[in-house]
Amino acid sequence: MKIVVIGGVAAGPKAASRARRRDPDAEITIIEKGNLLSYAGCGLPYFISGDIHDCNELICTPAGTVRNEVFFQNVKNIKALTRTFAESIDREKQEVKVVNLESQEHFTVPYDKLILATGASHFKPPIEGINLYRIFNLGHPDDAMDIYNTAKSNDVKKAALFGAGLIGIETTEALTKQGVEVVIIEMQDQLLPRILDVETASILTRYLTSQDVEVRLSEKAVRLEGDDRSNVRKVITNKGEAEADMIITAIGVRPNIELAKNAGLKIGETGAIWVDEYLQTSDQNIYAGGDCVENTHLITGEKVYIPLGSTANKHGRIIGNNITGGSETFKGVLGTTIFKIFDYTVGCTGLSEKAAREKGYSIVTCLAPGPDTAHYYPIHDTIITKLVVNADNGKILGAQVIGPGDVDKRLDVIVTCISNEDTVKELADLDLCYAPPYSNAIDNIAHAANIIRNKMEGLAKSLSPIEVKSRIDSDEDFILLDVRTPPELHKAQIEDKRVKHIPLGKLRERIDELPRDKEIIAYCAISLRGYEAQRILDGYGFKDVKFMDGGIATWPY
Amino acid sequence: MKIVVIGGVAAGPKAASRARRRDPDAEITIIEKGNLLSYAGCGLPYFISGDIHDCNELICTPAGTVRNEVFFQNVKNIKALTRTFAESIDREKQEVKVVNLESQEHFTVPYDKLILATGASHFKPPIEGINLYRIFNLGHPDDAMDIYNTAKSNDVKKAALFGAGLIGIETTEALTKQGVEVVIIEMQDQLLPRILDVETASILTRYLTSQDVEVRLSEKAVRLEGDDRSNVRKVITNKGEAEADMIITAIGVRPNIELAKNAGLKIGETGAIWVDEYLQTSDQNIYAGGDCVENTHLITGEKVYIPLGSTANKHGRIIGNNITGGSETFKGVLGTTIFKIFDYTVGCTGLSEKAAREKGYSIVTCLAPGPDTAHYYPIHDTIITKLVVNADNGKILGAQVIGPGDVDKRLDVIVTCISNEDTVKELADLDLCYAPPYSNAIDNIAHAANIIRNKMEGLAKSLSPIEVKSRIDSDEDFILLDVRTPPELHKAQIEDKRVKHIPLGKLRERIDELPRDKEIIAYCAISLRGYEAQRILDGYGFKDVKFMDGGIATWPY
Repeated sequence: MKIVVIGGVAAGPKAASRARRRDPDAEITIIEKGNLLSYAGCGLPYFISGDIHDCNELICTPAGTVRNEVFFQNVKNIKALTRTFAESIDREKQEVKVVNLESQEHFTVPYDKLILATGASHFKPPIEGINLYRIFNLGHPDDAMDIYNTAKSNDVKKAALFGAGLIGIETTEALTKQGVEVVIIEMQDQLLPRILDVETASILTRYLTSQDVEVRLSEKAVRLEGDDRSNVRKVITNKGEAEADMIITAIGVRPNIELAKNAGLKIGETGAIWVDEYLQTSDQNIYAGGDCVENTHLITGEKVYIPLGSTANKHGRIIGNNITGGSETFKGVLGTTIFKIFDYTVGCTGLSEKAAREKGYSIVTCLAPGPDTAHYYPIHDTIITKLVVNADNGKILGAQVIGPGDVDKRLDVIVTCISNEDTVKELADLDLCYAPPYSNAIDNIAHAANIIRNKMEGLAKSLSPIEVKSRIDSDEDFILLDVRTPPELHKAQIEDKRVKHIPLGKLRERIDELPRDKEIIAYCAISLRGYEAQRILDGYGFKDVKFMDGGIATWPY
Repeated sequence: MKIVVIGGVAAGPKAASRARRRDPDAEITIIEKGNLLSYAGCGLPYFISGDIHDCNELICTPAGTVRNEVFFQNVKNIKALTRTFAESIDREKQEVKVVNLESQEHFTVPYDKLILATGASHFKPPIEGINLYRIFNLGHPDDAMDIYNTAKSNDVKKAALFGAGLIGIETTEALTKQGVEVVIIEMQDQLLPRILDVETASILTRYLTSQDVEVRLSEKAVRLEGDDRSNVRKVITNKGEAEADMIITAIGVRPNIELAKNAGLKIGETGAIWVDEYLQTSDQNIYAGGDCVENTHLITGEKVYIPLGSTANKHGRIIGNNITGGSETFKGVLGTTIFKIFDYTVGCTGLSEKAAREKGYSIVTCLAPGPDTAHYYPIHDTIITKLVVNADNGKILGAQVIGPGDVDKRLDVIVTCISNEDTVKELADLDLCYAPPYSNAIDNIAHAANIIRNKMEGLAKSLSPIEVKSRIDSDEDFILLDVRTPPELHKAQIEDKRVKHIPLGKLRERIDELPRDKEIIAYCAISLRGYEAQRILDGYGFKDVKFMDGGIATWPY
């Protein structure tokens, strides 16, 4: 039994190692065009930032052993050919034609089962000046080393980032830590438009700005200018220009499909390699996994291209099973994404509100800010949870969570709920961990679920901050009812002539100060009291009362 | 519509507030025997420790408003009668006889719907000397204040804790922070015997000892001795004695059921008030929730008495709905428990191995230690995950997680999995958050799930550290194969003549040094390589190879 794996980074070595543990006798070969095996690409921004001091840590096992050819041979009895490029696959003869990139020697490697784990590549936008020096992608440890060294150069003060994807945002922090000022240039009118809704993206933009990162939205680089040494120095955009002594282009990655395509394997509608739920390609002797394949979205059932290291590892295990007699399926992904940027964590899973609307769902959403542990416990930070829920059945479709607090825990629970098609009632009733250092008696996500339930029952009526802002700008006549206590007003205010302030504790006694015929939009710090005010006014027979989702905490203006 | 709530701490005020938001016109009265409303009992240990500086913070809203009678009246239009004791219920007349504990005035309060949220009480063991001074329970802010003041006394150097329940363990840290030495005296042969298995309890004991907390197991206080001012000074046990200038008794709480019992309401098999899934008692006009009722265990379907603040809040909301025309059910609990002790977090959910075996399940378990974020990311800590899984169908039955790392996230995901009857395959395939600051590409719990899957497939064969220790003690003939690298050996070792050291990377070439006919138990730091070694030896035809679950990281000796 000959197993050949093309690609030695994540899915490939995982599949090979898994196959070895199941089949001690198979002949297993990994073919990798680069010089490194099993490196942790996701860790590269933390090398640039200086958090990881030695790039070698990214290719070591937790016990400190370098995962090189010798490691794979001695520990796994797997032959790893590095600097070896797979040129073509002969599916009939079941062999791969390869070339050693050092010696230029060509040879063929026969297989019984072939695994494609060819990964993905960054691409640079085709604009004038893109071939100047100091313009980088970040995909390989060598890129990280180049970026690190450039950031440390004396004549590099400013960096421009094109396309605020995940790696781009993480690199922003890394460069800032190295003393380089960053300007993000994003073509769309918000950051991370494919994964965040405008409310959460606005909060991120506000935070980045507070950290001295310049964010330019709806702006597009059209030309780059360099100095006499051909080092980039300036970005000319459709709106103006920006100084930039280095540029990171992070406008996306594309799956490496040439080998598969030339071999006549089916390419999916997303442009990545098509695989079935067993991760088998259109050739039954060839499997594919990791960043080169498309996945099924667990909610929509549609094919999506969402490359991620964690998914690659799952693929690797399943392929390792299936090529050694197993029969395991991979159902799909939710597009869960998380990143750290300075002291904030930003994450999402499932469908954004925008995506859910585009798919035709009838939805209800909420914005729920709050402390991530008991508010009286000394160590706590705020997180803001946006839930997107199917209005027809209460099932959770997606979530975005942002803030300095414990974001990943909440997202992971929601991931698990969505994977199980849970409703907000089911989420709210989960017997989650409760002790003051870890959560509130009603955890943030249970609280968010309850807000949704209140909305679905018709008890709670709200407008998003974005909607309220557009009402204010349109000059309509209504009352913005701020029910916070007087000391809280000093922290932040909505500056508008429609604002009326009545603390919640005085609302019942001062009820006659409010007109019953006018629209009233109540809010507080997080709109818990805003909702309470809405219910009080409803109880007194007021006809058109709402609260502003998330209150001052999510007001991004 | 007259709604009367007996009990003003957690479930009661929550039910009252929820009812108000749904019914603006109901007359709502809370009857509370104490002087405080809505206090955060779970926060009391953090007041004793000095983490919370003002006990008042435990009775404030997040916005800083004290939740007293005026607050409930002005904000909620709810009448709260404090220092008022409910003496009896006349179910026929639908009224509660009460007495004002200040004025001793007796009066009756009529109801259409009555809610019992009478809570639970601590009890002291009936031993000689239990009425000496400086012997405390911790249930009310007044207790916390007394404990705090006593711990600060000049002549208090040592404290004894009877019964290492949740509150007891939390108070241990609090007292230690105040400079008081603590000895825990536990009757059972392990800490927290009802929720932890011996492996995790042993790790906790080892950690507490490292923090200068004395842990005495299988020991029972039989008499207390005091000084000439009747302050306790010494504990006499069945095995010896311990100095103790103060004592916290934390051997458990009992539901306050007298009122319900005297009114002829059904009391459940656990000794707490019986309620149906709508939280209705045996009288359709009376609901009950919080620490005075029993719950259904979501796995076993049995009635259990597990009082917890988070459950009380869920109860309150559901009761508030159901007394105002709603029809909502509460399915039950998993017994999820978490606590912080110094730098460790310890938590569990579902069934322990012991409990699962007692219930007759055929089970498979694992002990999976590992870093809680990418091992190369500078900030990471270890957590140890024990999973308990139904061997018949792979469904998760329970988990225990312990360590300095991010425990609560992993437990909350497992809680969600168990609530959905997920299998280990479903857990392993969850699209959980992945970025180096938050997790490994294969998260700890997915890794644990994979170990279980390997065991269920027959690939992985293991013994627990407890089993290995008993084998060592029994003088059997086998080989303990340590496959760590030489530098790792300095960290910790199993001291036994059966230990043979061959680093994993040398195992294949030195295979002939091992006898094929003898039992071999392989291990490493966490037994990832231990498992790999087992598979290598299996592959070479060795007949009796296992690895030790969890490796050196879970070796508690």
